Formats: sequence, C-alpha cells, structure tokens
Amino acid sequence: MSWFTEAWTPHIKFSVKIKEHLYSETTPFQQLEIYDSFELGRFFTLDGIMMANEKDEFIYHEMMIHTPMSVNPQIEHVLVIGGGDGGSVRELVRYPSIKSIDMVEIDERVVRACQTYFEITTTGLHDPRVTLMFEDGLAYVKNTKKTYDLIVVDSTDPVGPGEGLFSMAFYENCYRILSKDGILINQHESPYFEKESTEMKRAHKKIKSIFPIVEVYQAFIPTYPSGHWLFGFASKVYHPILDMKTPLIQSIGYQTKYYNKELHVGSFALPNYVKNALRDL
Amino acid sequence: MSWFTEAWTPHIKFSVKIKEHLYSETTPFQQLEIYDSFELGRFFTLDGIMMANEKDEFIYHEMMIHTPMSVNPQIEHVLVIGGGDGGSVRELVRYPSIKSIDMVEIDERVVRACQTYFEITTTGLHDPRVTLMFEDGLAYVKNTKKTYDLIVVDSTDPVGPGEGLFSMAFYENCYRILSKDGILINQHESPYFEKESTEMKRAHKKIKSIFPIVEVYQAFIPTYPSGHWLFGFASKVYHPILDMKTPLIQSIGYQTKYYNKELHVGSFALPNYVKNALRDL
Repeated sequence: MSWFTEAWTPHIKFSVKIKEHLYSETTPFQQLEIYDSFELGRFFTLDGIMMANEKDEFIYHEMMIHTPMSVNPQIEHVLVIGGGDGGSVRELVRYPSIKSIDMVEIDERVVRACQTYFEITTTGLHDPRVTLMFEDGLAYVKNTKKTYDLIVVDSTDPVGPGEGLFSMAFYENCYRILSKDGILINQHESPYFEKESTEMKRAHKKIKSIFPIVEVYQAFIPTYPSGHWLFGFASKVYHPILDMKTPLIQSIGYQTKYYNKELHVGSFALPNYVKNALRDL
Repeated sequence: MSWFTEAWTPHIKFSVKIKEHLYSETTPFQQLEIYDSFELGRFFTLDGIMMANEKDEFIYHEMMIHTPMSVNPQIEHVLVIGGGDGGSVRELVRYPSIKSIDMVEIDERVVRACQTYFEITTTGLHDPRVTLMFEDGLAYVKNTKKTYDLIVVDSTDPVGPGEGLFSMAFYENCYRILSKDGILINQHESPYFEKESTEMKRAHKKIKSIFPIVEVYQAFIPTYPSGHWLFGFASKVYHPILDMKTPLIQSIGYQTKYYNKELHVGSFALPNYVKNALRDL
C-alpha cells in the first residue's frame, strides 16, 4: 500500500493512502496522475499537485459558480478558462437561464482522462450549450470577439501552464471582453502558507488595478494547502453582498451540498490577518 | 532532520518538519512533547495530537473567547475547563470588565511545561484575577458552589483525560452552575473526517437536549484535522447573532489577528453538509 504525498511547503506534508494508481500520462503540458484512495475516493494530480477529489470537489465548484450566479441571476453567456475536470461547467449547466458556456482548456488530455477516470465532475460537458475549446486561455481572451457576462478562471497555481492566467494582460483582456455588468471569478490561492499568500497578494493587486469592485471570499477545502482557500470576485458594477439576490440555485430547487445564502455572505468575512495582507498592496 | 506526523485519519497524514525536540514528559495523564519547527514555530502535542503551535494558535483562542464576549459584554465571572496552554486565559485577561477567571486543568504538567517551552499562550496566567486549579473538570463542575457567566470548555478530543468533558453529566452541571444568562463555549470537533464528525454530532445532540439556544460556529485552523474546526455556542438566553453587540474587544482597542465583527456573524454560516449533519440527531 503506498501513499501520495504533497509538499504543502518545504516543511509541511499532506499524505493520502492510495488504493490504486489508475492512470498516468505525460501530456504536452504537464504530468497527469489519477488515483483511487481510501479517504478521498478518486483524485487526480497535475505536476504532483492535487487538483480535485471525489470527497470535497463540490466545495470548490459550488463556491466558484453559485456565488456570482446569486449576484447576477441574469447571466447568460459564460466563459470558463481552465477547469479541465468539468466541475465548474457541471454547476453552470444546472441553470436553465444560461444560454452558452465556452470552456477554454489548454490541455485536452485532462478533460479526456477525467471523462474516463474521474467522471464525477464531467457530467455537464455534453450539455448542448457547452463549447469545448482546447487552446491557451491567455491567447483566447486576447483574440476573441465575443462578450461574456461571467468569466470563471478555474486555473492551476501560477506555475507551468497556469502562469499566464495570473498576468496583467490576462486580467485586462478579461475586463475588455466582459459585458458592462460582467463578473470575473478566479481561484485566488490561500492566505496561510507563504507561497500561496504571495500569489494571493500579487493576483489581488493586479485585479484591483483594473476592476472597480474587487472582493475576496473563502471556503473550507480540506485537501488544498492549509484548507483555507480563496476566490476573487471582480465586477464592473455588482457588489457581491449588497447586490446579492435570493440564490437562483435555491429557486430552481437544486440542493447544494456546501453553498447557501448565509454562507455566501459569510464567505466574504475574512479574518483580520487576511484583510491586512490584502490591504495597501 | 526528522518529521512529526499526525494521522488525521488512518488514511490521511499531516507532517511537520522538526527543527528541535525541546521537551518530553510522561505526565500522570498523558504523553507531552514540545517541538520547534520550521513552518509553525514551536508546538506541543498530547498523546501524539497537535494541540497548539505558534503560527495559528491565535485563531482558536480568539474565536473561543471574543465570540461570547461580544454577545454578552457584561460577563464578569468565567470558568475555563482545560486550556492548559493558557491561550484562552490570555484572551480573557484583555477585558478589564472581567472580575474572575477560574481555570480548572487536570494536568498541571501541561501548564508548567508551556510556561517554560511554549510561552506565547501563557502570558495571562499570572493576572491577579486568575485562579489555577489542577483537578478534574468533570468533578469540579459537579461540586462547585460558584456561579459563572461564561464557561469555556477548552478540551482535548473526547479520548483520554478529555472524555468526561463531552458527557451529559458534564453539560448538565455546566448548565446548573451558569448564571441565568450564562453562555457555554466548547471546542466542538470538526465536520469533515468521520471520527471528528461523529464526535461533533454526539456533543451537539447532548448540548441541544439541555440548552434552549445552541449554535455551532467555525474557523479556519490549518493545523487541525481538515482545517475546518467547530465551536459550540450554548446559552440560556442570548442568540449569538441576534444579540451580538459591537465587539468589546474592538472598543477597548485590542487588535485581534483573526476575529472581527463580520467574521463573528460569518462563522455561524455553516455549509449545508454541516447543517445537515447537525440536524435531526
């Protein structure tokens, strides 16, 4: 019996007992592994970092999608950058009011491997409103002529293929291709350990220089480093709390496992040490 | 260079690189170890479980104390059960309005060792309002003739010396010795992994059968299993949100590192999966 170990820092390790190593592939962009485990069910890693597992992927994906959808239930056209496991798309297709979902993922192999070995997140990908494009998100937002009501940046950490998705040019192009009341959501790293905290500050500083409304919200994701994970909410007009509506996901009768109305508000209440780190950058 | 490893479950391990093993003692009640580490600074363990470390102990202690103090700023007489590192007392002595703090810790050796090797949490123990008693908390609440406005159960997990502090008899005696508007706060385990989730449900069921107002709140504590840790708020009359005042800790000008007013409210907004686990027990 072997263990998968992730170094959360050079001095902190998180280890998961493996039941079976299901799949391994060196894609053109990264090293992909898929495992089955006793505690977390199936999970997959990119370049040795756990991306999603069956036990808690719902937390990340629900928080990423239902938060903006409760602020602007009129969202019709959505762009997902990254998100190769399909989890963000799965949550989006629950909304009948959404008309189109363009998903731009640089690495087709992640999508295809998940469709075979990590099916839990892929169930929305065949929805007729979904268009899959396998290309660089950075180039896509630069070149597209389309406009979106919501852009979801479901990226890896800012190393390797995910690096460009944390750049000024990327955020500027997101702003440009968003509709006049558009919202940008991105995975925003973590405040606790130094590496993620540094990236959190860098990303926040850039987004704040472009968008008039920028807030950070948090979720308990036990299998990401520190378990304290952040998302960025950037918008041209909507405030994530002041403009919050009765969650549409609730109105359409879908039972979320993590997200709810009070938690939406509570997730923007950051600890002082996080507020201080994000202030005066 | 060695590592301290804690099995969060039989299938999940959390490991911390050790700089120095500072102290080891088999006390009459448990095995105590104190380490210095690269990432978390100093930390100590009881029976192999990390209790507190210099990097994030403030989160647990601030949330345990400032939450009830913001609901009833008139609190004058406080009982702390457990809390051998002194962290809860350190936060309590910040309030000039508190008149007495009785701390009942079964294991004097934990207090003494922390005073030598883990000083960060012990700075309030010499406050003249503090009375240290080294005895069993379960027996103390059964026998005392005193009345308290606030009882803080800063216990270990419900195994070994901490077990009695999760019993019906203990909670019933807490209710009895609380003043007519008294509040009981306890460390309430965690919702994510099975062992802690089972204890969370057991404790909640018991407390709900005794107190009219019982709510659960949460904090991001990265070094406890799953990083998603809970506290119980049980009260005879006060609701933790509806009866919240402007935090007294803010009025007296003390800068908290984690706690703030919005986070107080947000900490009671539980994910649906946690609410469901606590419902219909």
